[in-house]
Amino acid sequence: MQIYDLIQKTRRCEKLTREEISFLVNGFTENQIPDYMMSAWLMAVCCQGLTDEETVSLTLAMRDSGACLDLSGIGEITVDKHSTGGIGDKTTLLIAPIVAACGGFVPKMSGRGLGFTGGTIDKLESIPGFSVEMPVPEFIRQVKHIGCAVISQSGNLTPADKKIYALRNLTATVDSIPLICSSIMSKKLALGADCILLDVKYGNGAFMKTTEEAGRLAETMVRVGNLAGKRCRAVITDMNAPLGHAVGNALEVEEVIAVLQNQNKNVLSDLALELSAHMLELSGKGDLQTCRKMASEAVTSGKALEKLAQMIAAQGGDAAVTEDTNRLPKANCQKIYKAEKDGYLSGIHSEQVGLACLELGAGKTASHSEIDYGAGVVLLHDIGDEIRKGEALAVIHGASETLCEQAEYRLRQAVSITEQKTESISLIHKIIS
Amino acid sequence: MQIYDLIQKTRRCEKLTREEISFLVNGFTENQIPDYMMSAWLMAVCCQGLTDEETVSLTLAMRDSGACLDLSGIGEITVDKHSTGGIGDKTTLLIAPIVAACGGFVPKMSGRGLGFTGGTIDKLESIPGFSVEMPVPEFIRQVKHIGCAVISQSGNLTPADKKIYALRNLTATVDSIPLICSSIMSKKLALGADCILLDVKYGNGAFMKTTEEAGRLAETMVRVGNLAGKRCRAVITDMNAPLGHAVGNALEVEEVIAVLQNQNKNVLSDLALELSAHMLELSGKGDLQTCRKMASEAVTSGKALEKLAQMIAAQGGDAAVTEDTNRLPKANCQKIYKAEKDGYLSGIHSEQVGLACLELGAGKTASHSEIDYGAGVVLLHDIGDEIRKGEALAVIHGASETLCEQAEYRLRQAVSITEQKTESISLIHKIIS
Repeated sequence: MQIYDLIQKTRRCEKLTREEISFLVNGFTENQIPDYMMSAWLMAVCCQGLTDEETVSLTLAMRDSGACLDLSGIGEITVDKHSTGGIGDKTTLLIAPIVAACGGFVPKMSGRGLGFTGGTIDKLESIPGFSVEMPVPEFIRQVKHIGCAVISQSGNLTPADKKIYALRNLTATVDSIPLICSSIMSKKLALGADCILLDVKYGNGAFMKTTEEAGRLAETMVRVGNLAGKRCRAVITDMNAPLGHAVGNALEVEEVIAVLQNQNKNVLSDLALELSAHMLELSGKGDLQTCRKMASEAVTSGKALEKLAQMIAAQGGDAAVTEDTNRLPKANCQKIYKAEKDGYLSGIHSEQVGLACLELGAGKTASHSEIDYGAGVVLLHDIGDEIRKGEALAVIHGASETLCEQAEYRLRQAVSITEQKTESISLIHKIIS
Repeated sequence: MQIYDLIQKTRRCEKLTREEISFLVNGFTENQIPDYMMSAWLMAVCCQGLTDEETVSLTLAMRDSGACLDLSGIGEITVDKHSTGGIGDKTTLLIAPIVAACGGFVPKMSGRGLGFTGGTIDKLESIPGFSVEMPVPEFIRQVKHIGCAVISQSGNLTPADKKIYALRNLTATVDSIPLICSSIMSKKLALGADCILLDVKYGNGAFMKTTEEAGRLAETMVRVGNLAGKRCRAVITDMNAPLGHAVGNALEVEEVIAVLQNQNKNVLSDLALELSAHMLELSGKGDLQTCRKMASEAVTSGKALEKLAQMIAAQGGDAAVTEDTNRLPKANCQKIYKAEKDGYLSGIHSEQVGLACLELGAGKTASHSEIDYGAGVVLLHDIGDEIRKGEALAVIHGASETLCEQAEYRLRQAVSITEQKTESISLIHKIIS
């Protein structure tokens, strides 16, 4: 098999066989295929696409490039969730305890923040003492007994994805549906859960800018997941405004706790309940209507909050934060951002809010920089709210006055106030299964 | 300037500026841009194309990556010719003396054989004593005094092209009109002639398989040449059958001499006269009709043959070959290939004939292999000729019986004989200026 011919085939939209794709993936992972050939192939994929069958072959070859987790020790149907990432997306911290409180099993490995989007692992690490590292047997034991565990990805899972992603990141070959799909799904398949719920975001704060693109990605991922023998479903959700009110690690944990304390009913809690219901239904806990009721009751009864406390305690964290959020790290300075005119809140540009938080220290700007867990922004209004000039729109949390002022400047770019009332956002756009 | 953004732009069909393209070409030539980034960009160009303006920028940046020849010492309008390559293409050996015999000036740097297509330099080296290396001042002096010189490309001309071509050759990014155009035209521009005639081949023995593709390449090259201040014209010619009767180095020189001795009037001599006429017209020697007459008379009068002898002598070769072709190298064995049935000769697949000659030793199969200058194939018929079973169709020249038998097997694949008479080939398809 000649690499040249395989690149040529993809360039000419001719289909590669499963063997040819495995040859490419394995050859590259084992350093037999040079970077310059792989990047040419990746660009050909970006420009010409792959068929679904080729995307399945690519995903499976990447899954099989390293170890696959064996979760059979849990002895129950397990369900995983993946979000394509967005600003203020703290749903993992909500769905894991909600689903577990309803008798589901959620073995979750999450990632750290990347650029202006926060990472679940960073958010959890803002809880004093919380450990995100755990040997696999212990991870399995915790899921079996508590129903959920959230740790950072470890071990030799999908080395092909790591190597390919690093190259894509340098060669402008990131935004390609078959490549995004194979990257996400190879990891999800290697992590071994029986059911997978995919939360595919679209909008200015997401990779996919339109519902059409997000829909195509979601359909491809669900098809690949099903073909690989998993129960898969995708929800397409709006990421034109940050998800919920808080953006920033400890601030988001605080918001999660408020939702589970039943204090906050808004788009965030609605989405978390809906995602949980789908995960429970995928796990075979009943029809969707029943599962919605179960999820909702887990919150109102306080059982989900209790489950979060159990998970925090099991992972070495200070479970008392679930009762007293003052135990979470706080930033030194708070600054109120006020409305400059009367009108209706018509837009909150997520990417700008994400960048404001990144600059405040809520994310890493370089691999060696330190995260300020208390830093971030708390929005005080939702899209569609009537606003008066001088009214507080957001609270900025940062280490210094200067940092807060910089963030205020960014927020001014992010927030739109118009004379006409805008429709409030409906988060879930479509379900694909 | 970030390479990533430039790759992204081309991938998204957004136009690069002249500065951005120079940055890419210079960065890569100076090893500042890694191969894997350049190959991703080249693949993006192959899939998405470049605008004419971008192709001009790319060509000029490649031209300026090294030295440019200064031919002003010749003191006359100079004219160069480039052929995109084909089987049996010995037109350079004809047009150089014909144009020079008519008072034109042809400073020609040629290449060696590549794969199954022969190189002008290899053909010239089959003449005993002929030297293809010469310092530039001497080259200029010879063109000034004799009117023509054909040497191999030397010096630090277009290093960017050498580096980019090597990468394209490994990453399936060869057949792309902007990349082919910039590779050819950057060299032609660096070589410094005032006028450039391009012979763009199409057909089974050429890079461009259809007249449409060849036409697009030709149009792009002419436009780029004109924008770079040169008088440019292109002829689109047929390469579905080998050009002329002989394929193989000394055999082709022998055919050239026969044409200049006025013994052979066929498609090859017609093409050589037409190309020469265009070169003379580009040089300002009169209108096309006058130039056609001049070229024709240069052959019938024997002046072009005399010019060839002068050029051979000036470059250290045995000029007596122009009177006695027995002085050229001969292969050990000759084998006659006979027709297997009655009918009309309807096709001679050039690529197959090229491969037969390559296997006979007429070209290099590896960089260290030796060329057998006497090896090759001489066809005895033209497309459209009536053929009788058992009649000689070709003479195979090779070092051994075994090699000749192998070649005979290839020829059997190459030659088609049909019951219906086929139209004879009209070589020149179109003129683009």
